[in-house]
Amino acid sequence: MRKILVIGAGRSASSLIQYLLNKSETEQLHITIADVNLRNAQKLTKRHSNSTAIELDVFNDERRQKAIKDCDIVISMLPARFHIEVAKDCITYKKHMVTASYVSNEMLALDDDAKQHNLVFMNEIGLDPGIDHMSAMQIIDRIRDGGAKLLLFESFAGGLVAPESDNNLWNYKFTWNPRNVVLAGHGGAAKFIQEGSYKYIPYHKVFRRTEFLEIEGYGRFEAYANRDSLKYRSVYGLDDILTLYRGTMRRVGFSKAWNIFVQLGMTDDTYIMEGSEDMSYRDFVNSFLPYSLTDSVELKLRHLLKIDQDDIFWLKLEELDLFNPDKKIGLSNATPAQMLQKILMDSWTLEPEDKDMIVMYHKFGYELNGKKKQIDSNLVVIGEKKPYTAMAKTVGLPVAMAAVHILNGTIKTPGVQIPIHKEVYNPILKALQDYGIIFHEKQVPYIGYNPQNK
Amino acid sequence: MRKILVIGAGRSASSLIQYLLNKSETEQLHITIADVNLRNAQKLTKRHSNSTAIELDVFNDERRQKAIKDCDIVISMLPARFHIEVAKDCITYKKHMVTASYVSNEMLALDDDAKQHNLVFMNEIGLDPGIDHMSAMQIIDRIRDGGAKLLLFESFAGGLVAPESDNNLWNYKFTWNPRNVVLAGHGGAAKFIQEGSYKYIPYHKVFRRTEFLEIEGYGRFEAYANRDSLKYRSVYGLDDILTLYRGTMRRVGFSKAWNIFVQLGMTDDTYIMEGSEDMSYRDFVNSFLPYSLTDSVELKLRHLLKIDQDDIFWLKLEELDLFNPDKKIGLSNATPAQMLQKILMDSWTLEPEDKDMIVMYHKFGYELNGKKKQIDSNLVVIGEKKPYTAMAKTVGLPVAMAAVHILNGTIKTPGVQIPIHKEVYNPILKALQDYGIIFHEKQVPYIGYNPQNK
Repeated sequence: MRKILVIGAGRSASSLIQYLLNKSETEQLHITIADVNLRNAQKLTKRHSNSTAIELDVFNDERRQKAIKDCDIVISMLPARFHIEVAKDCITYKKHMVTASYVSNEMLALDDDAKQHNLVFMNEIGLDPGIDHMSAMQIIDRIRDGGAKLLLFESFAGGLVAPESDNNLWNYKFTWNPRNVVLAGHGGAAKFIQEGSYKYIPYHKVFRRTEFLEIEGYGRFEAYANRDSLKYRSVYGLDDILTLYRGTMRRVGFSKAWNIFVQLGMTDDTYIMEGSEDMSYRDFVNSFLPYSLTDSVELKLRHLLKIDQDDIFWLKLEELDLFNPDKKIGLSNATPAQMLQKILMDSWTLEPEDKDMIVMYHKFGYELNGKKKQIDSNLVVIGEKKPYTAMAKTVGLPVAMAAVHILNGTIKTPGVQIPIHKEVYNPILKALQDYGIIFHEKQVPYIGYNPQNK
Repeated sequence: MRKILVIGAGRSASSLIQYLLNKSETEQLHITIADVNLRNAQKLTKRHSNSTAIELDVFNDERRQKAIKDCDIVISMLPARFHIEVAKDCITYKKHMVTASYVSNEMLALDDDAKQHNLVFMNEIGLDPGIDHMSAMQIIDRIRDGGAKLLLFESFAGGLVAPESDNNLWNYKFTWNPRNVVLAGHGGAAKFIQEGSYKYIPYHKVFRRTEFLEIEGYGRFEAYANRDSLKYRSVYGLDDILTLYRGTMRRVGFSKAWNIFVQLGMTDDTYIMEGSEDMSYRDFVNSFLPYSLTDSVELKLRHLLKIDQDDIFWLKLEELDLFNPDKKIGLSNATPAQMLQKILMDSWTLEPEDKDMIVMYHKFGYELNGKKKQIDSNLVVIGEKKPYTAMAKTVGLPVAMAAVHILNGTIKTPGVQIPIHKEVYNPILKALQDYGIIFHEKQVPYIGYNPQNK
């Protein structure tokens, strides 16, 4: 038996562990699931004979090292900041490692050590980052191998609620960390390239400069710009590309309504609001509006943001119960962003029966023999019931598959890696198809960056 | 003779030194002017017999200590971050010290030492901070001494161009550090209290929530909120006040036009623009607008910010030559804010004959014997030709006067001080009147915070 240690039995580990348990007979695997809470780990092993659940505090050096020493490969599903201690032990005890997280500088610093011991440290192999890398690089490589030159790459992804569970005016529920959703776009201007020109959008305009995307059978979506579209430009070999843009997908109308929160200042996470513990929903809104002896909070808000009486997005605010003077938020020493998150979680939390949906959309523009062409490729994954959500599936399955391939020696390039090479993306994208994770690709006319024509 | 050492002979030192030289006979003063550039110092001494110019690099410990040891009081007109070395020497050699800068934490840490040696370390005694503290506290103390309770304090100040030199559509020129003007409002939401409620305005809305102020003989002004109106709440003894607001004054229409820069993202100082060294004014503007094969920069900007064809503030943009494709900005590795500053300095630099203007406006609301009342107090100072600008006068004169009073023992409370006590503000506000720095005060009906009625 080959021994896999999975550290962290949180919500993203369900599909991952299910996959490994199902493969444990044919692939001769024993899976040890370690979590700071033993019951979490036990819940996921389901008493499968090829599994063991253990309690593990990742800061307990002795126990962590013992667990790592005992296995053949480590999968860390811990929050990203906790990977590094595990990674250092993997160097010490010469174990491979897999994570779904972005490569940190500390992780990257282990590249030489990993190479020297012929270890694969595979990172960014979840959904986003992960499936986005693999699905993009498969087509980019194919286009380039065919002798063409890339002109445009636009890539969009989103975690949404499935159509059958979509029952609010925002067409949105939290399917992942709500805090990241509330803070999306923070930390600097969005930066990208359109037709050879660098473009910048300040945070407070990001949600008003969206573009539309259509997915057959699922209708229209919109996308707003991610903060740094250029992060993978060199890694993907696109240094000379004319258009490079990455965005986040939402249902149409979400961003225009979200922009109200941005304009009011409710997504600010940099200061504590005075008296937050006693604030009602209405008081919270009123903090961002001028004082008036007579005018209502509603009218002040409509006037400040020039919202018409009959504008549809007013109903979206009402749906959140935002003007309720009796409902307390109940957070002390909270930032505006924390207060807003609490309000939204009342309305946007997935119910036990709700299903989520992952969408991804890539556009590849290229020139072949003097002709400009374009390939569009998209993915839709509908989740099953918790915990086997589309998010857990798309994050966990590639991680699990990579671990098995590394054990089998079919993924073998050593060092700190991300899944941009054929050795990785070909087998994994193929295997994902068996789980309904299938990209639909079509040739479309090349239009370059030109939102008016879409 | 009493020996005054002035360190730093920059633009804010002109009126200060002129005052000290004029008083040198009657007050028995010898003034040593130290600057890293000897000629700067010499220019300001004007070979006056009671003065000496010396070259001094403030980081040369030996020379700095010698100069400080030789004098009776030190005035530091250095940039604020350089005061602390001087201040430590003042403790060592038991000298008083005066600055126009905000009290830093390092400076505050010397409070005990200063008190122990009976030294006055007077700070924040320029214009703003300085004259604002003194003029506000004089009236606040008077109201309180009369048995009334303060309800409202609003305070506004601005450095502008004098009416006779006001020849651009923005009614504005740089009279102080342009960088501070470009970055005004950055670093977090504006925070204040109106009628007992805490209010917050995010940066991108600050320039759209202005209020108007009228000064007899000078017409209308507008004011936008400063970042932290509550900074001096406790210091002024206003912990229970219902309305507390501080703002920056501009001529009417400035903020609405400035808001265009904010909305586009041109005041961002957190990232370097790609290819900034080759950018024309027009390229710079276009960086913040969507790509289009056909539409002009002008139309894209009008559309993005919904600016009408005939809107007056369009002319303000044209006046800055913002759409010129041939004029290069000429800065490499520059942030948007640095690029914008360079563009503005082309149009907004004071000409040699230009005069500047300082305006200040306070409102004090209070309740006396069950009746609500209000005092408004304002100040207008028109400058003389450079370097004797209104800014140099209003910053430098209180500093100089404080130094003489400390030498004379009429300002004597030891420790790290700001000018909020009668011992300081009474003699200095009185002396400033001889130089045309005169507040005009009148009783007005109390209206509380109520911008609609103004």
